[in-house]
Amino acid sequence: MQDTQFYLNIVWTMLGAFLVYFMQAGFAMVEAGFTRAKNSGNIIMKNMMDFVMGTLFFFIIGFALMFGGDNPVIGTSGFFNPSKLADADGLYNGLPLGVFLIFQTVFCATAATIVSGAMAERTKFSAYLVYSACISIFIYPVTGHWIWGGGWLSDIGFHDFAGSTAVHAVGGWCALVGAKILGPRIGKYGKNGKPQAIPGHNLPIGALGVFILWFCWFGFNCGSTVEANSSLGDIAITTNLAAAAATLVALALTWIRYGKPDVSMTLNGSLAGLVGITAGCDCVSYWGSIMIGLICGAAVVLVIEFVDRVLKIDDPVGATGVHWACGIIGTLLTGLFDTEKGVFYGGGFKFFGIQCLGVAAVGAFVFISAYIIFTAINKTIGLRVTRQEEEDGLDVHEHGCSAYADFQSNI
Amino acid sequence: MQDTQFYLNIVWTMLGAFLVYFMQAGFAMVEAGFTRAKNSGNIIMKNMMDFVMGTLFFFIIGFALMFGGDNPVIGTSGFFNPSKLADADGLYNGLPLGVFLIFQTVFCATAATIVSGAMAERTKFSAYLVYSACISIFIYPVTGHWIWGGGWLSDIGFHDFAGSTAVHAVGGWCALVGAKILGPRIGKYGKNGKPQAIPGHNLPIGALGVFILWFCWFGFNCGSTVEANSSLGDIAITTNLAAAAATLVALALTWIRYGKPDVSMTLNGSLAGLVGITAGCDCVSYWGSIMIGLICGAAVVLVIEFVDRVLKIDDPVGATGVHWACGIIGTLLTGLFDTEKGVFYGGGFKFFGIQCLGVAAVGAFVFISAYIIFTAINKTIGLRVTRQEEEDGLDVHEHGCSAYADFQSNI
Amino acid sequence: MQDTQFYLNIVWTMLGAFLVYFMQAGFAMVEAGFTRAKNSGNIIMKNMMDFVMGTLFFFIIGFALMFGGDNPVIGTSGFFNPSKLADADGLYNGLPLGVFLIFQTVFCATAATIVSGAMAERTKFSAYLVYSACISIFIYPVTGHWIWGGGWLSDIGFHDFAGSTAVHAVGGWCALVGAKILGPRIGKYGKNGKPQAIPGHNLPIGALGVFILWFCWFGFNCGSTVEANSSLGDIAITTNLAAAAATLVALALTWIRYGKPDVSMTLNGSLAGLVGITAGCDCVSYWGSIMIGLICGAAVVLVIEFVDRVLKIDDPVGATGVHWACGIIGTLLTGLFDTEKGVFYGGGFKFFGIQCLGVAAVGAFVFISAYIIFTAINKTIGLRVTRQEEEDGLDVHEHGCSAYADFQSNI
Repeated sequence: MQDTQFYLNIVWTMLGAFLVYFMQAGFAMVEAGFTRAKNSGNIIMKNMMDFVMGTLFFFIIGFALMFGGDNPVIGTSGFFNPSKLADADGLYNGLPLGVFLIFQTVFCATAATIVSGAMAERTKFSAYLVYSACISIFIYPVTGHWIWGGGWLSDIGFHDFAGSTAVHAVGGWCALVGAKILGPRIGKYGKNGKPQAIPGHNLPIGALGVFILWFCWFGFNCGSTVEANSSLGDIAITTNLAAAAATLVALALTWIRYGKPDVSMTLNGSLAGLVGITAGCDCVSYWGSIMIGLICGAAVVLVIEFVDRVLKIDDPVGATGVHWACGIIGTLLTGLFDTEKGVFYGGGFKFFGIQCLGVAAVGAFVFISAYIIFTAINKTIGLRVTRQEEEDGLDVHEHGCSAYADFQSNI
Repeated sequence: MQDTQFYLNIVWTMLGAFLVYFMQAGFAMVEAGFTRAKNSGNIIMKNMMDFVMGTLFFFIIGFALMFGGDNPVIGTSGFFNPSKLADADGLYNGLPLGVFLIFQTVFCATAATIVSGAMAERTKFSAYLVYSACISIFIYPVTGHWIWGGGWLSDIGFHDFAGSTAVHAVGGWCALVGAKILGPRIGKYGKNGKPQAIPGHNLPIGALGVFILWFCWFGFNCGSTVEANSSLGDIAITTNLAAAAATLVALALTWIRYGKPDVSMTLNGSLAGLVGITAGCDCVSYWGSIMIGLICGAAVVLVIEFVDRVLKIDDPVGATGVHWACGIIGTLLTGLFDTEKGVFYGGGFKFFGIQCLGVAAVGAFVFISAYIIFTAINKTIGLRVTRQEEEDGLDVHEHGCSAYADFQSNI
Repeated sequence: MQDTQFYLNIVWTMLGAFLVYFMQAGFAMVEAGFTRAKNSGNIIMKNMMDFVMGTLFFFIIGFALMFGGDNPVIGTSGFFNPSKLADADGLYNGLPLGVFLIFQTVFCATAATIVSGAMAERTKFSAYLVYSACISIFIYPVTGHWIWGGGWLSDIGFHDFAGSTAVHAVGGWCALVGAKILGPRIGKYGKNGKPQAIPGHNLPIGALGVFILWFCWFGFNCGSTVEANSSLGDIAITTNLAAAAATLVALALTWIRYGKPDVSMTLNGSLAGLVGITAGCDCVSYWGSIMIGLICGAAVVLVIEFVDRVLKIDDPVGATGVHWACGIIGTLLTGLFDTEKGVFYGGGFKFFGIQCLGVAAVGAFVFISAYIIFTAINKTIGLRVTRQEEEDGLDVHEHGCSAYADFQSNI
């Protein structure tokens, strides 16, 4: 017989899973709010289908690739039937298989949905669905196996508690590659190549999305204990302090650089802090988390500018600055700020080196995979809508609708 | 003295209740988003007052009718004071009475609020309040007593775990009858009787509503265990898989039939899967839940068309397709897919017959009750606003406001 | 070793903290929806920065002032390092320090954010940040220490379970003083001094905010037990009944007084009931909570009119009616309706007198502090934007953006 602590761990993990599911609402609102009204229906559909495809393909294939057996590179059992991976008591990793599976499913879908923002306003819907299937079937589960499924990175001591790398950098690399291959939106770069701002259509719902994500991040990070223990409060504090510090520094930096505190960049600062603290939220001190937040808040502003102006990759919502850059930075900073093994705490460079290796290996694998997948999609069905479709908006051409149909006539 | 498992069951049930409360926000956003801007304030008010009336009348009368004693047809004690139904330890059904009461209250209010979408954009506010009181005082508690309150349907083995019938079909029948008696909106059917699309005004908030509902459905279904046990993860998985499968098939079906993947129908597909799995989420297999989802996702598209084109009942948000049709279908499919007693698992037709009987009995009772109530309202205070009020919008006439008052002048 | 009940208490408190965090989204949507589109980005930023400043300053200073030691007037230890206040087992108040700290942090930030609504549409952003820092560093922690931190009010038996006074009246007093010193918006009072309605720009997101707040209030009130016990359901019921009763009476009262049921006032009625029940949600009967709701629902309508017409203080979202008035009223009514010590239950006037004293003492301290702070800000950097900035909207001048930038051209 199982005891109450076992059931309590289930309850805690379920709460985490519910909250991480709800991040889908946050992403959908952020991406809809920070892009143009003519593409809002399309953005919503991409977010919804990311979760739908993620749920189904992760159930059928992804979970087996990620958690099926001890091979250091890839899982090999449990296809079409995750229940086969449970032990005689129906458990996996000390939890009923269904509990573990729902928790992992919502994480997988989060990685997928990061990409839709970076590729917004010009991607063909059918092409996007193919990509979305690929990340849930293959990309995310493979690196997920390395980090969380008993693969080689976990064997050597790589630490990514709730997924700065496993979720955010994976999604971020796909976003970067996808947006690059796709090319910029019409009008994004002027004749001289100077980037033009294309403001979003609805800041309040974009901000609502950020509040939802911050809320759900408590489930993302604290829930990743998958048990109720004494560390939950500390994880919530490091998560919250990093987010707050990053928001403040993004506000201050835009105030200094642009003369005014920028709304959307400040909101991206919040997300940057949350992404950055995710890897080490369980092993850094309170003040360490503030430092990580300060660094990520500055990084997101600078990286978004760098991607926009130097790389000239058009990322409408700044997803690469948030998830790619801060996912990587947060994982590396864990190697510095871990209170036991970190460089700044006398742990030497071994652990930091492992963090660098993990970031590089995951980056290389995802970069190459995403490059192949997006290139293959581009050469076959094509990644991008026509010029006419892009100018008119994706809603009318791809979905035969307008997100704000009667707004003008009935207002 | 009670033990920790007891307190853990309380915590789990409270979490479920909180999430089911939050479905009100989901319904409000879905209904506001999928209707016109000129009626948004009115829709909000109906949703809010559904919950308010549901809370008060269920406390005063409904809870007693639903849970007060062993009569197979109707509860008979606890009026004005639900606490009287508690045992000597203050418990009802193994939980402190207050815990059980808040959980049941939020379910009752959910049934009530289903109707406002189907009757949107033309119902008199005062008339709606009278209906809303009736469902919370009488309709929902009576059939709820049959199914969950120790009444005759639970005695014969009818299985409706979290309320495909008890909540959704009950609300759905009321929605169907109400919308029929009310008649279509002005301009809904052309001269030749051909249905005209009247698009909603704000897809992003409509989609937000769907994400909120999906999120809260985890509380609705998993919370209905009212205890923390090993089944929670499986219930979350069946719930999530059914919703995903239904979304995918609704997307595919609209793509095939209309040439483009339809946004609002896809979103209704998500809700259809959630409604359909609710009856059997605790007793079907993972693959069974996918099958239920596929069926409900197809059904919602076809039923919405059927109601719109054949029955010519004007249901602005598709509530009948979602809650009425899939509530019924999901309850019946439980009779096929239950892994112990279902037809497909060698359980014979007895259990399936009971499911059919329950669906029919509840349908007959609610249909007749709703018909009487809506007819009585219609003959006395009148169900419908004037033509002028409908054309101008309900906000200005019923509430003296505009939901987007300064939008044009200050944008 | 700690036992499972200990971990269960942690889980419950964490859930409460997450929900109270999410109130930030509710406040942001309420305040954005009920004000004009031209100031939406600014309102969002104030709400976000309230939480950010609250998190950081409460961590560094506020927590120590509120909980650091036994001095009856003010906390004296734990500055810059809240962990110092933990006992040998790492606990504070029976919970791990991090758990207690995150729970207290989100409460502090809630008090701060009440003020932004009352001061909306005309406050200089930099000035607002200074105020926001002051309430988190000083005002809230001092009165919080009196009430919850072992200070003199808790010593004499003042009862404010979840913060009608400690959070809402404190925020409400600041809101009242701030709005008064700031002066009304341009055009708010006509030549004859008659108040003009300045309607908000987006009722649906305002309503969404109210639904979010109601949802989160379950965490606010039930979570304030900071342990899983048998009372949780009763607290949820009193909270919910009071909110429902207040909503209904606000609806009815506006229907009677204005001829139509008013949307925004009804929504404020919900919040009024929630604020009012917060002090006594753990110690009043179900019917007592309905009475408190009825009183607060009436009070919010009358006080908002009084502030608007008689005091001529321009409070764009009615924050003073909700938080100031009902915070005070709810605390006093606890002295009447407490089922053990209340006047109406034969407890005599001693407890009621203590409640009055607490309300008065907190009011005096906050009034004076806020008066000094806002006056000092006003005389130095200035509280108010220029006439031109106010007319054009704060978004363009303060943040260089428009919340709905492309809405017109791309709709």
